[in-house]
Amino acid sequence: MILGGFYKVSNLLKCSGTSWRILRRKMSAASSSLTLREQQDGIRRIVLNNPEKRNALSLPMLESLRENLLTDSQSDDLRVIIISARGPVFSAGHDLKELTTARGRDYHSRVFQTCSEVMTLIQDIPVPVIAMVNGVATAAGCQLVASCDIAIATDKSTFATPGVNVGLFCSTPGVALGRAVPRKVAMEMLLTGRPVSARDALLHGLVSKVVPEEQLEQETLAVARRVCESSRPVVALGKAVFHRQMTLGRDAAYASAATAMLENLTLRDGQEGIRAFLEKRKPVWSNTDAVD
Amino acid sequence: MILGGFYKVSNLLKCSGTSWRILRRKMSAASSSLTLREQQDGIRRIVLNNPEKRNALSLPMLESLRENLLTDSQSDDLRVIIISARGPVFSAGHDLKELTTARGRDYHSRVFQTCSEVMTLIQDIPVPVIAMVNGVATAAGCQLVASCDIAIATDKSTFATPGVNVGLFCSTPGVALGRAVPRKVAMEMLLTGRPVSARDALLHGLVSKVVPEEQLEQETLAVARRVCESSRPVVALGKAVFHRQMTLGRDAAYASAATAMLENLTLRDGQEGIRAFLEKRKPVWSNTDAVD
Amino acid sequence: MILGGFYKVSNLLKCSGTSWRILRRKMSAASSSLTLREQQDGIRRIVLNNPEKRNALSLPMLESLRENLLTDSQSDDLRVIIISARGPVFSAGHDLKELTTARGRDYHSRVFQTCSEVMTLIQDIPVPVIAMVNGVATAAGCQLVASCDIAIATDKSTFATPGVNVGLFCSTPGVALGRAVPRKVAMEMLLTGRPVSARDALLHGLVSKVVPEEQLEQETLAVARRVCESSRPVVALGKAVFHRQMTLGRDAAYASAATAMLENLTLRDGQEGIRAFLEKRKPVWSNTDAVD
Repeated sequence: MILGGFYKVSNLLKCSGTSWRILRRKMSAASSSLTLREQQDGIRRIVLNNPEKRNALSLPMLESLRENLLTDSQSDDLRVIIISARGPVFSAGHDLKELTTARGRDYHSRVFQTCSEVMTLIQDIPVPVIAMVNGVATAAGCQLVASCDIAIATDKSTFATPGVNVGLFCSTPGVALGRAVPRKVAMEMLLTGRPVSARDALLHGLVSKVVPEEQLEQETLAVARRVCESSRPVVALGKAVFHRQMTLGRDAAYASAATAMLENLTLRDGQEGIRAFLEKRKPVWSNTDAVD
Repeated sequence: MILGGFYKVSNLLKCSGTSWRILRRKMSAASSSLTLREQQDGIRRIVLNNPEKRNALSLPMLESLRENLLTDSQSDDLRVIIISARGPVFSAGHDLKELTTARGRDYHSRVFQTCSEVMTLIQDIPVPVIAMVNGVATAAGCQLVASCDIAIATDKSTFATPGVNVGLFCSTPGVALGRAVPRKVAMEMLLTGRPVSARDALLHGLVSKVVPEEQLEQETLAVARRVCESSRPVVALGKAVFHRQMTLGRDAAYASAATAMLENLTLRDGQEGIRAFLEKRKPVWSNTDAVD
Repeated sequence: MILGGFYKVSNLLKCSGTSWRILRRKMSAASSSLTLREQQDGIRRIVLNNPEKRNALSLPMLESLRENLLTDSQSDDLRVIIISARGPVFSAGHDLKELTTARGRDYHSRVFQTCSEVMTLIQDIPVPVIAMVNGVATAAGCQLVASCDIAIATDKSTFATPGVNVGLFCSTPGVALGRAVPRKVAMEMLLTGRPVSARDALLHGLVSKVVPEEQLEQETLAVARRVCESSRPVVALGKAVFHRQMTLGRDAAYASAATAMLENLTLRDGQEGIRAFLEKRKPVWSNTDAVD
């Protein structure tokens, strides 16, 4: 499927039943084929591309994912990121082969360090990140879904944190999971390792929406395009403020958010949006941090 | 509908399909007709009364709401507050006309400051506040629902934080929303601006109950009357302690709550309730802070 | 039902419709018959055994429960604890007779202190604690369910915090409840005292699973046995880390959890689990804290 240094991602994507229109990308030198990246009309798609290894979040996979998240992440051309996966497994979590004593503590430390970096980066990056899940997401794979801002899943998807079964409790996935779903739901998943269905994941807030497989692509792109219709700096401000205020007490949170509202109003796009609304027309975003 | 300085609120309320028994109130000088207030048998009703402007939370509306919350809020005659609205829109949030550069930063600052004051006042006031929602609640209007202690909504109600669509991210509504529903639900609402149905709002904890429109009045009053059957100081203590302990770590929360239990037991009504239970009779509340 | 110093617990359990296989236990001298305790194959069962008093959490009952939780809780033979109850009421909460002025403030203080100790002990103990609920759980009884790591309930079970009705607001139950379910759900339960059904409790995360009465025993034991199939120190580490990281901000939580993952990998059972997985065989746990 490698066509003269280009990946025909549309074909790759067909493996997970998608109908994303035909796009090509030149593989960057640094980014291995462990993940694929393409971007069009503000929408970056990152595809976990190691279905043979159940898209294990090995250290190279995590580094590739991190690079694909970070590359030009401050660019105005990037508006939203979709993370999906090839094959029937979204991601099975860490590559256990990397976690034997043979590799040594320093390597293990790098694995967990890089994993935490990727998960927090998803929240700290200035554009929304959407998980598009069609299949099994376990351990750090489940953590990846829990860490995204929005998650859309097919009804055949399942979610689990089964580390306890192989003697490695899903402690880091528990950080994201415990902040996404009710505590008892998280505890049962972590202590028993049992998978929850997409429906139950929706019920408990782990995913945002569940759709039939044939609608996954369309629904996810609809959300992504909706994000693209908003002003980039407004979304960036809002996303950052939301996460920041959630760690504060109520009164401090209100003070922080009210300051953000004032800042938002000084943005050119803040005023343009309000003017457009009052003039009953579509806003024309500058998508820059310029203040009026 | 103005009858010699009196509002026939029962008529006004009919606009939102209610059958609240006929009550009249004299408009106080300070309270504009932006909100209506009436009180009977311990139940204060505050009605957002600007349906032409979709009950926008303009600065005057917020000030009127604040006054109606604060007036005699320490009085033993007040036991519970119900906030509802005239017309098909519960509240559309801030009045965007107030947020143009023409008004200036000081004015904007007052708007957000007053809004935060109202929202936190609802939680800090010593009586429970119930949102009775029949229709659309968006932006700060959705925040108002999220801030109430209890929210009862009709099945046709919808909830949204669509600020991002007009370039003003719903950062302050996110404070209340992020503390009411799972994080991913809040994030999707904030990032996409899409409305959620009453059913989904119930599913995720944004509202306490969903009923058909014809039962809204009756169900809300049933809850309000139930609150009136309890002791005022016991409810006040309990509400204050709940919010306080939720900001603490578990052990500090238990220490705080256990102290509150001891204090509760010293209240005349604390002992009366227990005696009545043991003697298999209805308690007779003093509704005062007196200790036995 | 006392057979020569032995309790035929299987008979007692029949009262709550159970079919737990026949087991006997010798009553320990210290443990009163207020609670029953038996243990087999790593599964400890503690049965609230005062159905005539609706399994009230009187001070002696709380002390008995605490003792049954603490006894040999560090022993490798203990892997999981199930708390259930005889009769149609799981627990009606505090014994109000203990809370009259006749008893005095020091006694009241001991009651709340001991109650908080039991509830936090359930979370701090190194093995998972499962609530197996068939019937009504109110006030501190509801708190007990909320405090367990996992809760499995029959569809006829109900949950309430009705203290407000007897003039004693459920402030300490609110600590556990407010951390288990969405805030508005907790507030409505606390302010109105109204019971929620098992289905709604599941919806909001207060219980982990709802089953028909005839499956309660079987489902609970299935979860308990699944815990027993995992390594004891791995579960202990995971449970402790989960609770600890939930009180921290995200970044500190990740740092704490990542350190725990490294520690987990040094455990003999951590490496055995991974080796077994890679060798496609069942792991053989040492169940000790030994490091490889």
